[in-house]
Amino acid sequence: MEKTLTLFTAYNQSNYPLIGHGKRNAQVLKEAFANIDDSLDGDTYGSGKVIEQFQDRMAKLLGKEAAVFFPSGTMAQQIALRIWSDEKGSRKIGYHPLSHLEIHEEDGPKELHHLEPLLLADENRPVLLRDLHGLPEDISAVLLELPQREIGGQLPEYEELEAMSAYCRERGIKLHLDGARLLEVLPYYGKSAAEVCALFDSVYISVYKGIGGIAGAVLAGDKSFIKQSKIWKRRHGGDLISLYPYIVVADYYLKQRLPRMERYYRDAVELAGLYRTSDALRVRPEVPVSNMFHVHSDLKKEQLEAAFIQVSQETGVGLVSTIREHKAGGVYFEVSIGDRYADAPKAKLEEAFRLLNEWLKGEASEDPK
Amino acid sequence: MEKTLTLFTAYNQSNYPLIGHGKRNAQVLKEAFANIDDSLDGDTYGSGKVIEQFQDRMAKLLGKEAAVFFPSGTMAQQIALRIWSDEKGSRKIGYHPLSHLEIHEEDGPKELHHLEPLLLADENRPVLLRDLHGLPEDISAVLLELPQREIGGQLPEYEELEAMSAYCRERGIKLHLDGARLLEVLPYYGKSAAEVCALFDSVYISVYKGIGGIAGAVLAGDKSFIKQSKIWKRRHGGDLISLYPYIVVADYYLKQRLPRMERYYRDAVELAGLYRTSDALRVRPEVPVSNMFHVHSDLKKEQLEAAFIQVSQETGVGLVSTIREHKAGGVYFEVSIGDRYADAPKAKLEEAFRLLNEWLKGEASEDPK
Repeated sequence: MEKTLTLFTAYNQSNYPLIGHGKRNAQVLKEAFANIDDSLDGDTYGSGKVIEQFQDRMAKLLGKEAAVFFPSGTMAQQIALRIWSDEKGSRKIGYHPLSHLEIHEEDGPKELHHLEPLLLADENRPVLLRDLHGLPEDISAVLLELPQREIGGQLPEYEELEAMSAYCRERGIKLHLDGARLLEVLPYYGKSAAEVCALFDSVYISVYKGIGGIAGAVLAGDKSFIKQSKIWKRRHGGDLISLYPYIVVADYYLKQRLPRMERYYRDAVELAGLYRTSDALRVRPEVPVSNMFHVHSDLKKEQLEAAFIQVSQETGVGLVSTIREHKAGGVYFEVSIGDRYADAPKAKLEEAFRLLNEWLKGEASEDPK
Repeated sequence: MEKTLTLFTAYNQSNYPLIGHGKRNAQVLKEAFANIDDSLDGDTYGSGKVIEQFQDRMAKLLGKEAAVFFPSGTMAQQIALRIWSDEKGSRKIGYHPLSHLEIHEEDGPKELHHLEPLLLADENRPVLLRDLHGLPEDISAVLLELPQREIGGQLPEYEELEAMSAYCRERGIKLHLDGARLLEVLPYYGKSAAEVCALFDSVYISVYKGIGGIAGAVLAGDKSFIKQSKIWKRRHGGDLISLYPYIVVADYYLKQRLPRMERYYRDAVELAGLYRTSDALRVRPEVPVSNMFHVHSDLKKEQLEAAFIQVSQETGVGLVSTIREHKAGGVYFEVSIGDRYADAPKAKLEEAFRLLNEWLKGEASEDPK
């Protein structure tokens, strides 16, 4: 094995990379446009068939009156919470301490909208009904992320979700769904998107995660909410003259992959089972409830990287491209399943994990923790 | 002539439509990607060759240390002014009363950034040095739009621009260039983009006007300014996971059309000359200083529409697709020249204007103003 080979390179050169749908390269766009007629008119500042038809389709899928396409979820969600905040006249909103809004947006919600987040639950589990008890009366909205990405994609049970929805509705607290990966949890819940969304006043979903588009997001809600969101979209600089490159791509892959969400979920459960065969690794959640999970370890980053490089060299299986240090100690990596997993022969997978476990046992005995 | 034919339809069906480069349809994207290899990696949250190389090229073109690609100019410019405002600790900024920020952004600059605009000059002319005299000492920045789009694309003379730049620099007022159409004014000024940009602390240009991309903008300035702008870009929800569809397209058409800016300008001067042959129309500015101008008239909207439909039916020349009421009275339309104008045979153009002038004389005698 070359000393200089990085895990990232080893993963990208492997025969059977297991994560996601593949690279977000030019091919992704060109395939989606291959059967699009040259004369298809682009959208213009939110108008035009290409954007309106897609928005209508998404509103229907999500069971809401209306939907609007946004360049990003960051923009869509800040705007949703701002609208609810203005409606109630209070900047207080509630979300999980590891919400995208709290840790990935450079404080946009605070700097641009002066939102005052109350952090619900602790960092290791999703928000539950008991976290809503004792919220101040003047809280405008609560955001729930399904599944909670930063903790491996955990979910509250559906009954808990219904109870939280009822609780908020009784108290006039708007409930917003961070459904970046909503479609990916439907097989576990055994519900339609519209059934889940009916528990929420506003809903965001991403078009480039399970769907595998290039970028973009959809915000859905009632007509008055969506009308306001379009004004804020313009204020944010998100009302682009043309969004059709993202929309055509989202539409193409949504049709292809919506029926595959069940398979991605089953595949994640299977792969998590393989990871659980290793004593040196901990899967979180232990049994996935969507197409994703996290794997934690007390091994050193370099040890795990060396093991994964070895596995990819000897079996062709690319387990993951990136391993991160966890702020609570140890290391972890994220597994999210898309089209690629099904291409890896089962025998290769078993071989990969046999080899991995042997290697990790060796590591553990050389360098006990 | 069918009673139901609208000017918009007549224009779009005409053999020689004179405005711009053509429709922003799927072909625009497909042509730009035709020679792009499938394996071209997309950008990821602002990183990757495709975005970094384009940004470097734009920084060089504009003579600035660094540049960043934005999904929209609305976002880029609010952020530029916010950075200068934070630096000085004052929300006061100055711009023209018909600036994009004042009339097309749903008050985003005020609602999101609490900027306090001082409106410079009157609505009928561009900002001049005398408008800067008497600005409050604590003004953070002045934005100049070159050319001033809403008044037909007027420009200050270059010496006036140099004087404004020197004035602001002496007083610690940051000067920001709204250069949505900067490349389009260079032939008139006889300057390079870098020479004009050297007069400004920060610069925005659009990639879908003269360049004819699908959407997007570039913000340029010194390294520290650009570093801050990237943080704000994320806050705004503009740091998309992938912007490559817009970047590849912008790059493709920039290479093609940058050398044609001189021609677009000359064509605009020629076409404005043809419009000036009509007594019923007023061209503004009388002689264009870029690829654009406005045409005003005291005729009724319907009269002018009927005339233009007639011209397109009889000569195949599509003059313009939309005529607007002007808030100061009368009607007007915008002419901006791109690739299409050169496709119209001169004889057809002369025939079109002969016919137009006859028709308009008839209208004027039937319904004198």
